[in-house]
Parts: sequence; structure tokens; C-alpha cells
Amino acid sequence: MKIAVVGGTGDFGLALAARLAEVGHEVVIGSRDAARAEAKAAEAGVDGAANEEAVRGADFVVLAVKAETALATAESLARSLDDVPVLSVASELRFTKQGVLPGESAQSIAERTQAILRAPVAAGLHSLAAASLARGKAEGDALVCGDDAEAKRLALELAAAVVTGRALDAGPLASARVLEGMTAVIVNLNKRYRGHAGVRITGLP
Amino acid sequence: MKIAVVGGTGDFGLALAARLAEVGHEVVIGSRDAARAEAKAAEAGVDGAANEEAVRGADFVVLAVKAETALATAESLARSLDDVPVLSVASELRFTKQGVLPGESAQSIAERTQAILRAPVAAGLHSLAAASLARGKAEGDALVCGDDAEAKRLALELAAAVVTGRALDAGPLASARVLEGMTAVIVNLNKRYRGHAGVRITGLP
Repeated sequence: MKIAVVGGTGDFGLALAARLAEVGHEVVIGSRDAARAEAKAAEAGVDGAANEEAVRGADFVVLAVKAETALATAESLARSLDDVPVLSVASELRFTKQGVLPGESAQSIAERTQAILRAPVAAGLHSLAAASLARGKAEGDALVCGDDAEAKRLALELAAAVVTGRALDAGPLASARVLEGMTAVIVNLNKRYRGHAGVRITGLP
Repeated sequence: MKIAVVGGTGDFGLALAARLAEVGHEVVIGSRDAARAEAKAAEAGVDGAANEEAVRGADFVVLAVKAETALATAESLARSLDDVPVLSVASELRFTKQGVLPGESAQSIAERTQAILRAPVAAGLHSLAAASLARGKAEGDALVCGDDAEAKRLALELAAAVVTGRALDAGPLASARVLEGMTAVIVNLNKRYRGHAGVRITGLP
């Protein structure tokens, strides 16, 4: 399928684009700056374009921008996206002396993105380390959630292609509060144990 | 050490008490009802008493009551607990047609418990399935968090004794929002895949 990775010039987006292209998807990365998108796309062997252009004709759109710009990006692309299913991967992090804290809002970025868009929003891939994904499939499982069955199905299909483990359905979009928060936990674990933590779910058949 | 498990007559508390007694801790389970605590304690081969009695002289107290009664229990025990370190294990769950949702509050039960108690509060063990713990060590890793170094150290020591994997320091007490939320994700995974999900962290040395 044709997948647009908005914010695809960042480390995570670029690594994701490369992995998706490897398994045969037609991938275009988007950026606010078309020239930057094209230059970065060449590194990953995919296409690049300005965000509005990148999402045109896409079957699925990954919003891989940073948390700070996720909602503004969703607003700016709402009309271009129309009803094309979206995957939200951003996590809010607050860096403090005590460690990294999850976002302060009770609502996840994914739920706030859904409130902006007519398009159905799924969320997932939060626990995948960009550094791991840049070298190949990311170690561990990918957790995905959503209220829309089709958006979740596409997200699970995409996720399954980029991890060494399984893509797992973690329930409704409200689970994004937890999946986004896991990024803060993972950053704390990485600092404490000097690793690149990922998540694997045990005990499922 | 002497460990009191408040709410120890529930499935999780009772299984935890049995595992802790096995590795040599002096364990007493507490309940609002002393007779019930004693009867259940006999099943697990530990002591039982009314909550106020159970926490007396304890080195560490596990608050294993359900989410609905966690804060009221903390309030009722605040004076008896004094400054004895506490481990909060409760998770709020909201059952809906769409699936199980995490708690609606931005603050975790553990943080709200800390606001009530003078005693330092750590949080952890949320992802351990009672059914798994009842049969022996629970499969997977145990994530623990806290702002107080001594409470977290005791919680990590306790956790390491009851899982097949590792006890891991997931950072400050605010991480409890995520650890508590993981219980909702785990219940959704259990329903969807008909298993007893647990968590293992990959990628750490």
C-alpha cells in the first residue's frame, strides 16, 4: 500500500520509512520543508515531499512528528487527510531532575488528534527505539490501539512488518494514554540501565 | 523482613503473601475483618490480622487492596503506618463496551496515596497476573517506580523474589500512571488473545 510518513525526516520516521519500503510498501516521507523531505528521502531510498503533497493518494498516514507539533500538524493536514486512516506515534515526555515523566494531560496525543481529524486514528509503535529500527526490525513486540477497526487493522499490518516480535491489539484508543506513557518509562529504563529498552508481552498463546 | 500485605485476602494479595513467605520473609496479611484475615492466612501458611494490627512493626507494607478502596484504606491506616515504606499495587480499570479503559484521573493511585501518607510510597507489580503468581513466580519482569530511594529499594527487593524475570527501576513515582495503566492494556490483551499477559523488557544489559 501507499504509506505517507509525516515527520519522516526525524530519526524514527526515517527508520520506519526505510523498513516499510524494504517490505514492498510505496513510501513517501513528508516534511514542512519539501527540499528537506526530498534530501532525507534519498537517504532511505523512498520518495519525499511537502506534508500536504505526501499524504495525497496515501492509503495510510503515519504521524511521526514530535509531540510538541503533533496537534498543530494534524490541524494543518485535516483537510488533506480527509478520511485516510492515521497512525499516531508521538509521546509527550517531561524531563525533570527526578527523571522523565509522562505527559501531564489525562488525554493521550492520539485521542486529541482524533478530536481534530475526521480521519480514523489508531496509535502504536511508541515503544520502538529509533536506534534499533534504523538497523533493522526493532526488537520486541509492537502494541497498537484504536477505536476504528480498519485503522487498527492497517496499523497492526504495518507494525508486524517492523518488529522482531508480534503486533498486538491493545484495545481501544484510550489505551494510547498507556502506550504513550511507556515511552517515559522506557527512557527512564534506558538511563538507569544504559540500554535500548523495548517491550515484549509474555503469556499469550 | 517483616512484610504486611494489606488487602491480603484477595487473590493477588494472597498469592503474593505465599510467594514472599516461601523466600523467608515474615508475612502477615491484613483485612478489615480480622477473622477473615486469619482464615485466609492459614491457606497461605502466613499470619493474619486486622489491617491496623497487621502493619504494626512491619518493615514494609504492601497495599494490595482494590482501586476503589485504596485511598480510603490509606487514610484509615495513615497513623498506624507512620513512616513505614509502602508499595502501592492497585490499578483503576473502567469496563466499557469498547474495552477496558485506564483510570480517568491524570494522577495515579500511587501518587494520590502518597498525598495522604507521611510514609514514602513506591508503586509496582501491576502487570503480574494473580493466577500466574498463585502457581509460583509470575512470568515476566516487574516494573517498580518511586521518588523515595529506600521505599524503591525495598520494593525492588520484594519484586525480584516473585517474578521469573527481573525487577526493574522504572523511574519516579509519576511512572505509576503508566504502570497502573498497563493493567488495562493487559486485560484487553487477555480478552483479545485469551491468555495471561505479562511484560518483559528487552534490550537492557
